[in-house]
Amino acid sequence: MKEIYIADLSGFEESRIFDAYFLVLTKQQRMTRNNKPYLNLTLADKTGQMEARIWEPGDPRIVREFERGDVVKLRGCVARFDDRCQIKVDQLRKAQDGEAVLEDMLPATLFDVDELWGRLNATMESIANPDLKRLLEALLTQPEIARAFREAPAARQLHHAWLGGLLEHVVSLLGLAEKVAERYPILDRDLLLTGVILHDIGKIRELTWATGFDYSVEGVLLGHIQMGVDLVEKTITGLPDFPPRLRTLLLHMILSHHGKLEFGSPKLPMIPEALALNFVDDFDAKMQAVKSEFEKSAREGRAADELTGKVWALDNRQLLSTKEWLGEKTE
Amino acid sequence: MKEIYIADLSGFEESRIFDAYFLVLTKQQRMTRNNKPYLNLTLADKTGQMEARIWEPGDPRIVREFERGDVVKLRGCVARFDDRCQIKVDQLRKAQDGEAVLEDMLPATLFDVDELWGRLNATMESIANPDLKRLLEALLTQPEIARAFREAPAARQLHHAWLGGLLEHVVSLLGLAEKVAERYPILDRDLLLTGVILHDIGKIRELTWATGFDYSVEGVLLGHIQMGVDLVEKTITGLPDFPPRLRTLLLHMILSHHGKLEFGSPKLPMIPEALALNFVDDFDAKMQAVKSEFEKSAREGRAADELTGKVWALDNRQLLSTKEWLGEKTE
Amino acid sequence: MKEIYIADLSGFEESRIFDAYFLVLTKQQRMTRNNKPYLNLTLADKTGQMEARIWEPGDPRIVREFERGDVVKLRGCVARFDDRCQIKVDQLRKAQDGEAVLEDMLPATLFDVDELWGRLNATMESIANPDLKRLLEALLTQPEIARAFREAPAARQLHHAWLGGLLEHVVSLLGLAEKVAERYPILDRDLLLTGVILHDIGKIRELTWATGFDYSVEGVLLGHIQMGVDLVEKTITGLPDFPPRLRTLLLHMILSHHGKLEFGSPKLPMIPEALALNFVDDFDAKMQAVKSEFEKSAREGRAADELTGKVWALDNRQLLSTKEWLGEKTE
Amino acid sequence: MKEIYIADLSGFEESRIFDAYFLVLTKQQRMTRNNKPYLNLTLADKTGQMEARIWEPGDPRIVREFERGDVVKLRGCVARFDDRCQIKVDQLRKAQDGEAVLEDMLPATLFDVDELWGRLNATMESIANPDLKRLLEALLTQPEIARAFREAPAARQLHHAWLGGLLEHVVSLLGLAEKVAERYPILDRDLLLTGVILHDIGKIRELTWATGFDYSVEGVLLGHIQMGVDLVEKTITGLPDFPPRLRTLLLHMILSHHGKLEFGSPKLPMIPEALALNFVDDFDAKMQAVKSEFEKSAREGRAADELTGKVWALDNRQLLSTKEWLGEKTE
Amino acid sequence: MKEIYIADLSGFEESRIFDAYFLVLTKQQRMTRNNKPYLNLTLADKTGQMEARIWEPGDPRIVREFERGDVVKLRGCVARFDDRCQIKVDQLRKAQDGEAVLEDMLPATLFDVDELWGRLNATMESIANPDLKRLLEALLTQPEIARAFREAPAARQLHHAWLGGLLEHVVSLLGLAEKVAERYPILDRDLLLTGVILHDIGKIRELTWATGFDYSVEGVLLGHIQMGVDLVEKTITGLPDFPPRLRTLLLHMILSHHGKLEFGSPKLPMIPEALALNFVDDFDAKMQAVKSEFEKSAREGRAADELTGKVWALDNRQLLSTKEWLGEKTE
Amino acid sequence: MKEIYIADLSGFEESRIFDAYFLVLTKQQRMTRNNKPYLNLTLADKTGQMEARIWEPGDPRIVREFERGDVVKLRGCVARFDDRCQIKVDQLRKAQDGEAVLEDMLPATLFDVDELWGRLNATMESIANPDLKRLLEALLTQPEIARAFREAPAARQLHHAWLGGLLEHVVSLLGLAEKVAERYPILDRDLLLTGVILHDIGKIRELTWATGFDYSVEGVLLGHIQMGVDLVEKTITGLPDFPPRLRTLLLHMILSHHGKLEFGSPKLPMIPEALALNFVDDFDAKMQAVKSEFEKSAREGRAADELTGKVWALDNRQLLSTKEWLGEKTE
Repeated sequence: MKEIYIADLSGFEESRIFDAYFLVLTKQQRMTRNNKPYLNLTLADKTGQMEARIWEPGDPRIVREFERGDVVKLRGCVARFDDRCQIKVDQLRKAQDGEAVLEDMLPATLFDVDELWGRLNATMESIANPDLKRLLEALLTQPEIARAFREAPAARQLHHAWLGGLLEHVVSLLGLAEKVAERYPILDRDLLLTGVILHDIGKIRELTWATGFDYSVEGVLLGHIQMGVDLVEKTITGLPDFPPRLRTLLLHMILSHHGKLEFGSPKLPMIPEALALNFVDDFDAKMQAVKSEFEKSAREGRAADELTGKVWALDNRQLLSTKEWLGEKTE
Repeated sequence: MKEIYIADLSGFEESRIFDAYFLVLTKQQRMTRNNKPYLNLTLADKTGQMEARIWEPGDPRIVREFERGDVVKLRGCVARFDDRCQIKVDQLRKAQDGEAVLEDMLPATLFDVDELWGRLNATMESIANPDLKRLLEALLTQPEIARAFREAPAARQLHHAWLGGLLEHVVSLLGLAEKVAERYPILDRDLLLTGVILHDIGKIRELTWATGFDYSVEGVLLGHIQMGVDLVEKTITGLPDFPPRLRTLLLHMILSHHGKLEFGSPKLPMIPEALALNFVDDFDAKMQAVKSEFEKSAREGRAADELTGKVWALDNRQLLSTKEWLGEKTE
Repeated sequence: MKEIYIADLSGFEESRIFDAYFLVLTKQQRMTRNNKPYLNLTLADKTGQMEARIWEPGDPRIVREFERGDVVKLRGCVARFDDRCQIKVDQLRKAQDGEAVLEDMLPATLFDVDELWGRLNATMESIANPDLKRLLEALLTQPEIARAFREAPAARQLHHAWLGGLLEHVVSLLGLAEKVAERYPILDRDLLLTGVILHDIGKIRELTWATGFDYSVEGVLLGHIQMGVDLVEKTITGLPDFPPRLRTLLLHMILSHHGKLEFGSPKLPMIPEALALNFVDDFDAKMQAVKSEFEKSAREGRAADELTGKVWALDNRQLLSTKEWLGEKTE
Repeated sequence: MKEIYIADLSGFEESRIFDAYFLVLTKQQRMTRNNKPYLNLTLADKTGQMEARIWEPGDPRIVREFERGDVVKLRGCVARFDDRCQIKVDQLRKAQDGEAVLEDMLPATLFDVDELWGRLNATMESIANPDLKRLLEALLTQPEIARAFREAPAARQLHHAWLGGLLEHVVSLLGLAEKVAERYPILDRDLLLTGVILHDIGKIRELTWATGFDYSVEGVLLGHIQMGVDLVEKTITGLPDFPPRLRTLLLHMILSHHGKLEFGSPKLPMIPEALALNFVDDFDAKMQAVKSEFEKSAREGRAADELTGKVWALDNRQLLSTKEWLGEKTE
Repeated sequence: MKEIYIADLSGFEESRIFDAYFLVLTKQQRMTRNNKPYLNLTLADKTGQMEARIWEPGDPRIVREFERGDVVKLRGCVARFDDRCQIKVDQLRKAQDGEAVLEDMLPATLFDVDELWGRLNATMESIANPDLKRLLEALLTQPEIARAFREAPAARQLHHAWLGGLLEHVVSLLGLAEKVAERYPILDRDLLLTGVILHDIGKIRELTWATGFDYSVEGVLLGHIQMGVDLVEKTITGLPDFPPRLRTLLLHMILSHHGKLEFGSPKLPMIPEALALNFVDDFDAKMQAVKSEFEKSAREGRAADELTGKVWALDNRQLLSTKEWLGEKTE
Repeated sequence: MKEIYIADLSGFEESRIFDAYFLVLTKQQRMTRNNKPYLNLTLADKTGQMEARIWEPGDPRIVREFERGDVVKLRGCVARFDDRCQIKVDQLRKAQDGEAVLEDMLPATLFDVDELWGRLNATMESIANPDLKRLLEALLTQPEIARAFREAPAARQLHHAWLGGLLEHVVSLLGLAEKVAERYPILDRDLLLTGVILHDIGKIRELTWATGFDYSVEGVLLGHIQMGVDLVEKTITGLPDFPPRLRTLLLHMILSHHGKLEFGSPKLPMIPEALALNFVDDFDAKMQAVKSEFEKSAREGRAADELTGKVWALDNRQLLSTKEWLGEKTE
């Protein structure tokens, strides 16, 4: 069981020796100025990542057979240089089964996955349209898909790039989509919510998360839109008498949910539910980006009257926290 | 009181002589092939507009002194050519006070203005922030502003181009904004709703609607964003001790509500409430455009499996009505 | 059997009465200036289309029950107005089975379809990769698909908008693709040619051509790229042990063949064969557009030193025929 | 009084101890490799800026209470590393009133501010239109505005980012605007010159320059265009009987002077004087950028046949100095 | 000698028979509704153009041998239809030498060409740089070039599309360029003025104006930038010891004067004089467009508070005449 | 004669002293931390480039008189720092005539230049059009042009940035152009091939390659398109009775071969051969970029299922090698 995390290390004394488990993200052979070989590693766990150096790769206490993607147990200490930290590794071996769990090694959602999954299933239960309901059930009760849906990140980096990120993103959207469906009677609630649940399902194939977050080659060549359409399409094919028009509308929603051709959707939204799906996806992503940025600013000790850094998800705009800025004044 | 409307005329026999009141939108002198002068008019009322011809402008039963913007009473009949209708005018005079009301002469919201106004005021009442509340009260209780806010269209043409259109648009946004504020605690509800109410208030100066819908010269040169900022700014100046930061945030929301520089906002949204205002404004406009287009298609007898015409407000996209398309199958 | 074609009519005397079969593209009820109803039709056959008028729709020699998409037999004559021609219809009934064939009613490729199909099959035979070959055979030997592939136009309008246009376009590309594959050994010839054959196969679902050329609703919502991927994907699923990587590459080629996101491809070409497919598709289309434009200019009697009209497929550029311009001088 | 400037330091021997006054732009606590804390500062005066290090922050000769924005007196020497210089600080205290003036601490215009101000006032005197003249007088005779107008930079960085930069920029424009007004009688000279004087006046609120050049939070949220309009608008409100149309035209010129929506102007220039203002502003900025770049190249010893570096204000274009390139040859 | 102009005809009685000379711009054979052939012509002179009809092309008083580009003498009268005028031709023959001059047949500058030419030559005389001066002399004293420079329009349509338009445009630029050169000492006055004189000289080859304004085929394929570079280049080649760097700079100015690649300049301005040339060319064109638009509005009787129509040369912007709008109030 | 190359040095022991010839690309005076001056050089030969340091520039065994562009002989050894190599120079003098050849000092085509030149000449021989043939002969038999054509790189960096790169590029295009001309009879083969040979000929003036690859000042100001047009134009002027239309078409092909205004072509392709030239140029460049990238990936040991780095010439896309990816599976 993991006791020491990357996030703790920056506070350690340089003299303190510790043992800990980490995931190996990169491993490179390098040479010192004096032409002495050493190993440079990038190690990670769910709290972040840090560089590490093995100055004596030939030391018998350092195993040779470990690779990118392995979890290792190491003994070492922290070295500081200017304002950066580095791990100096004295001993290293591969972790044995049961010593460490993947969940500890990669960043993960801060929410309870079971609770998120429960909310997703509650929405599924609430779907009145029997065809949409049996489609969702047919997909989400497949153990392989359910497991992947609970684990998958929503991206390699940037927004929701953590285990459970996909599920967290979808549940967050459902909250907004429910409200939007209430407001606009023109929207078919069941179709919209089904679209929300399935719009990014191709990401369980596009991304890999066993050894850090990355794209599969198939994911790069086909993309999660196509992979999601394929998954839904094949599931529908297995359902007797699924209405063909309903199939077309659902596939259209997945195809068009990025909202613009230049964002990789081969079709623009042409039905009200597809327009709404694009809107809730876009707006929720922006609100999450705002929230994350304010939390990051708070962690970094930014003053209430300072703007945040440039936010990638908002065209590199800087933001101001309304509440902090106003609050400063009223206190 | 008006009894015959433009929308009725296409069903009239050519032989039927009628009397009716209309607003003169254009008036031009022209010449027949045989070199005989005649007058060509565009006449309007709240149900639409139609061309009219006065073949004997010298006839003493046709007054000479009427202009663009006048309401006139005329006697005439309908003439048809191919699939178009025209009014043939036999007699014409200016309407006298009390004979006709402006409300009958221009297209108007289908909603009850008093009810819309009531909902706006109820929202205003619900604002907890005392500064925002006294600002809204200071503005909306000025009789001249209240009257204009109830009457103004939201545009010269396209979306909400009818009397009461501004109010209808704002009340529609409030419904969505309330829901969005519930969903995202990061949003300051009072600030968002105040922004919704005030974001387009400059339109009461930018547009004119006494004689058809048009822009004022000042409106063309300054725009409703600047005119709205100016109106709010001056009102705030009159309120003792209005918090300067709150003033800045409100003005920022008005300035940035178009969301992009190329749409005429000189600043991009940089606070959560400005981002939300831009989104609800954009999405509500799109949903209204979808709704209008489907209603228009229904009026024109489009089949359930036909796409609508190209919708300007949605990048000339065609749309499909989910409900009709699916419904056709289940019936 | 059809003996008189639209293209012949402009040379007819106005007094000449003729009998002929045409396809009804549109049918509208209209009104004369004197308020008399008449019918306006757009009639077509493979040589073009022309307006027609039925001035006495109540005449018992005019059947009432015919619709858009029907083939009709009519008796009438040509009327000229200024420089336009119109058909004046005296009698009209629906064509009976066997009286007329669809091939006569829509514009069709000028090439021999059997010969084009033979060349496509010869290419298929020449594929050495057994997996690609059995995929092509599995698809193209399905009678429904083979028939559609031989009949389908390549577009609703503009380039190759005629029966057999898809096949003609594909065979034309094969000629260039073969040469390009010879020139660049880096290209996998079999993969490239298979990609050429299959890249637009979704058009057999996206387009309809029974009653004039149009998009199906599914075609508008999903597009031929997705429909083609789906068709190929399902066929592969039915082939035992089809290599999954080959499947991914083929689907990638179909997805990316438009070459740019803004042209509706959700992925950019990332393998050499996908780059080559996009190039041959683009260049062949441009060369065909040039050829068509020069032929049209010749038909319209344009002088050798005149530029053509603006060519849509080449960004509304005007073109000059090298050979004619140089020839004029040397003769 | 300041005797030693940043620009002098690069020529100092490392052994030379000096005393000098600087403005603190940044102050950060850091750690050496050996985990020893030290302070890193960015110091500035009007000739530039340089890094400084305090290796013994606990030394009693180093005061603790100084912050970003303070002027300090220090004793130290220069340390060189590769081609960079650094100040090694031995003693440091805050400057006392009267010891140093802000003008010495920030880069400032090379022109005489009184002379520039005199030319601005001469132009103001030359305005024949009495309304425009009393507006300018009402604004520029307010001591707070006059002082700010004389001090403000024209930007945080890039063009005219120095004290007096705004005034220098405006006076430079006046020279070109006078000539343009002479050339085009369609232009109202008084309106154009008034627009030139006022177009950037909002920068006295948008920017702060007491402690280095930066944007105020209000400046970021509202922008100098809106802040300038507001300042002019309020001043006009205080002038009895100011012609409302003249007010509209002036505000339009300020709003539109960036010339394009994507440059942050909410309106495009629609009157001749607004077009001319945008032109002179843009062209003068480019000519100043060219001049600065050539001076910089000369300082850096670039040969006459070498192009300059990439110039940000000219789309990262490189430039060639005509006169030097030709001169080289004729000498 | 020409006595009756197109511009006069709209005021003629329909019964008035007149004789006049016109240039034939187009000539087409057409057919009446009754299938009777007639000729449709477009006739022009310097005041405008008008349609004409020859209802009896077989009449012996109508010659058969005339073509596009011929000047003809005709007898006829004016016919009116709705608000349009047409010439009804009774007799027609080709004009004989000496009967009419080309200057009467095409729109021409309103300025005195000799005076414009004099001002151009005065500028040439004022050039101090001997190489630039002898280049200008070598070009402008060639009779063929001088004649073409005095005659050529500056465009086929839009700005300065009249005989002498090129010269008028160049002389107008010289006025602004002189002032700009005075203002910015960094500019080499002689180089800038030479660039102004030569920048569009390729238009004397790109355009044809003998029979209406059009592009030559060579002009379409090569463009006036390339044709101007070629003309200047060849002239320089004939001048002994012309400094090669000066040649490069001049050619660079011609190449880059459109200021952007997408406007057809293959190079961006990289020397101060090229930047200035692009600016004066662009700004003078805009000021002329403004002036023309205001004159057109005045001719059309637009009210002082009305905006102009959309101006193509200013991105379809509408304009307001400052002076008229303000004047209305003060009178 | 050169025996030791840059590419060899990374494998050298640090203790190994060697003598070698290199080209000096840059030479800068710098200062150590201890304020000791040293020289930093960039040295190159045909296999690459490397930094070098002269720690004792005053040593009499180091000549002072050498500059950028000189070939030098040096004695020294390799020093390693982290993963980078550097040359430590002990002795240095300028190379004497005959000691080293330029071909060894710059990267050069891997093809045999005589063979490439032979293929170019064979194509020239195959041209049937006598005018095009004598033009090519007139150009390519000029010794100065032939030598430059054989030596010139095709670019300063990126694609074909090596000696002989222009010739290699042109010969590569000829292979594709021949095939394209066979496929499309509408193309004039002789004109297309002549265009291919001449399209980039201006690069022999635009680029310099005596002392590393760079642009000449004239090249920057005029560009290779203009310089090529000028060279061809002047050669044609020297040929009696060269058909003017053929001249225009050839110049048009050179002007338009970049295919888009924003890529620096002042004209778009308007004849079939110009369209084809742009296509073969663009496609061949992309295929070469793909090939180079795969070779680079192989050298860097990238796995078969890894994507390449981002490829600049393909919009920073990553690529996958079809053959390797599929091969991995079949082996």
